[in-house]
Amino acid sequence: MDNFIFYNPVKIIFGKNTIPELTNEVSKYNRILLAYGGGSIKKNGVYDQVVTALANHTIFEFQGIEPNPKYETLMRAVELCRTEKIEFILAVGGGSVIDGCKFIAAAVDYEGDPWEFVGDFTGKSIKSSIPLGTILTLPAAGSEMNCGAVISRANSPDKLPFASQKVFPRFSILDPETTFTLPTAQTANGIVDAFVHITEQYLTFNANASVQDHWAEGLLLSLLEEGPKVLADPENYDARANIMWASTMALNGLLSVGVSTDWATHMLGHELTAKFGLDHGVTLAIVWPSMMRIKKNNKFNKLLRYAKEVWGIGEGEDAEKIEKAITKTQEFFESIGIKTHLSDYGIGREDIDGLIGQLDKHGMDRLGERQDINLEESRLILEACL
Amino acid sequence: MDNFIFYNPVKIIFGKNTIPELTNEVSKYNRILLAYGGGSIKKNGVYDQVVTALANHTIFEFQGIEPNPKYETLMRAVELCRTEKIEFILAVGGGSVIDGCKFIAAAVDYEGDPWEFVGDFTGKSIKSSIPLGTILTLPAAGSEMNCGAVISRANSPDKLPFASQKVFPRFSILDPETTFTLPTAQTANGIVDAFVHITEQYLTFNANASVQDHWAEGLLLSLLEEGPKVLADPENYDARANIMWASTMALNGLLSVGVSTDWATHMLGHELTAKFGLDHGVTLAIVWPSMMRIKKNNKFNKLLRYAKEVWGIGEGEDAEKIEKAITKTQEFFESIGIKTHLSDYGIGREDIDGLIGQLDKHGMDRLGERQDINLEESRLILEACL
Repeated sequence: MDNFIFYNPVKIIFGKNTIPELTNEVSKYNRILLAYGGGSIKKNGVYDQVVTALANHTIFEFQGIEPNPKYETLMRAVELCRTEKIEFILAVGGGSVIDGCKFIAAAVDYEGDPWEFVGDFTGKSIKSSIPLGTILTLPAAGSEMNCGAVISRANSPDKLPFASQKVFPRFSILDPETTFTLPTAQTANGIVDAFVHITEQYLTFNANASVQDHWAEGLLLSLLEEGPKVLADPENYDARANIMWASTMALNGLLSVGVSTDWATHMLGHELTAKFGLDHGVTLAIVWPSMMRIKKNNKFNKLLRYAKEVWGIGEGEDAEKIEKAITKTQEFFESIGIKTHLSDYGIGREDIDGLIGQLDKHGMDRLGERQDINLEESRLILEACL
Repeated sequence: MDNFIFYNPVKIIFGKNTIPELTNEVSKYNRILLAYGGGSIKKNGVYDQVVTALANHTIFEFQGIEPNPKYETLMRAVELCRTEKIEFILAVGGGSVIDGCKFIAAAVDYEGDPWEFVGDFTGKSIKSSIPLGTILTLPAAGSEMNCGAVISRANSPDKLPFASQKVFPRFSILDPETTFTLPTAQTANGIVDAFVHITEQYLTFNANASVQDHWAEGLLLSLLEEGPKVLADPENYDARANIMWASTMALNGLLSVGVSTDWATHMLGHELTAKFGLDHGVTLAIVWPSMMRIKKNNKFNKLLRYAKEVWGIGEGEDAEKIEKAITKTQEFFESIGIKTHLSDYGIGREDIDGLIGQLDKHGMDRLGERQDINLEESRLILEACL
């Protein structure tokens, strides 16, 4: 096992009717930015609950943080925070709204163009942040319990991550009932997103990290067991709660301690979103099977373990077991309604040059846990996704 | 799943040669209490590493925090802290040293007799605490990443827990190499302690908490797989690291969120330690098998799941599978060198009245996740341990 530091101070308030707890959590602050997305929270009652809980505060609303939140949109919120001397930012939504709010919180007092800190994973660029909290309404990204974010630019194929301990949410409220009314596609995308977060941290080198391996397998099993339940019965509370908690645990740092991580599927996926606007979860479902097939020699021992522990595949030659596990995973993505080929989305061989160009531009020419996926191999992977 | 709050701000610094990181972690403080136990840290090099890392600080040493740390001992350290205006407490040792330092930290500024807050799990009694950090040298108790502690009194069969968020360690340094020289019995006791911590949170009601169940099973498997390795080869780094990390994860709050907990095995075990001085791990290995057999109807579904997921027992009648799983667990405890009957330690039927008297005195007359273990049933359980 490799050396590591684990630190995660996010307070999680989880369960039915927990949004009123917001009142206590923000009692120190008066001027609050209430940031959200397209307005679904006005239909499902979350907005009303939040406004009720903040009755004694001065609220400034910022609506319209889009999926794959855009620098240009977020900078308007940064201006609002500066003008109105906002003391606390409350993100209400899914990973895009929360990621966007992390950017806003860090940007308000940043000297220079905040785009400069996008791309920095060391945390060195960000010296301070306005405090923020979240109310999660879409389980998927895990942003509610980590200090990373992914930001895009309008009219540009740039979609890049940053991280800083300064942007850990002070608290995150997770009420599974807020997810009852999610569109089926968003629920399914969220399940794939969490699933691939786990495999990015699990299907790498064997580090003899027993707890991390068992926990990754446990989370994958939770998603496989509970995912079909929420799709069949969107108001199954326990299933919604399990998906929500599994998604949060998938990316809060516990799985990556002491082991190597991959993230190549995410990086290729980001380019597909940036260029063609595909949902994040969809891009992962497309890239993952080909990534695993083409990198199976790198990941052989872990894929074999995955086949046995997650899919119960014990018979046959090792290579067959691995192929069977990849196929079953791909079938799972399809079974929850997500097509797994580029051609299903009208993307063809002629589009691959452009994607490779983007990877090149973003310095993504040495991906994966071994940093051995160059642009040529990315091309092979994308071609295998057709 | 039940509603819950999860909050754990302890920074974990894990791995080889990590004790020098101490220098950065305590840079804000000058006057530091260095507290430890019987002095094994002077033999294994940990003491020297700590003193080197604290070269620029004023160190006050407090040696002699005993197993099952005693109020009377700890109050001497409290006086030292008050006299010397200690700013930070560094606990170097296992759960007893760390628990003792949590008491000291909370007691220094406490108005009244600090024994008053022992027994309080609500955190209401403790208004403030001196900051503390830990260097863990014995994986077992999990105290390095939680805010609870268990304190005893000299010349009295009192051994009682307390908890307060004020006593979360600011950091804990876990270097698995510091455990290479542990006596075999301490290593084995630690494995049993962690094992039973997990089952106290897992073998209760079925709460449909998928992640918590899978994670409990994963940790149990880690202990079963890695435990024999460390006993056979005490310098197997990865195995030591896995046991250390599993023990920490077993009691940091993640397993108990959203589910009911039991703790009856611990409460009976505490009385055995208080009255007869048995090691904590030993008491758990004695009580656990009888507790499971006598409470198996309460825990039926979970024990059945435990039999299948942890021991791979799939054949036979349900009750047989459960009995087989309990027997296999008991055999595991014996296999790592811990005898599992009271009679192995010279404790007989004539001693049970005294133990029941202690449980009565401590208000332990409604134990377990259903609060249905009264003194009569505790008597049956203890008799079954003979």
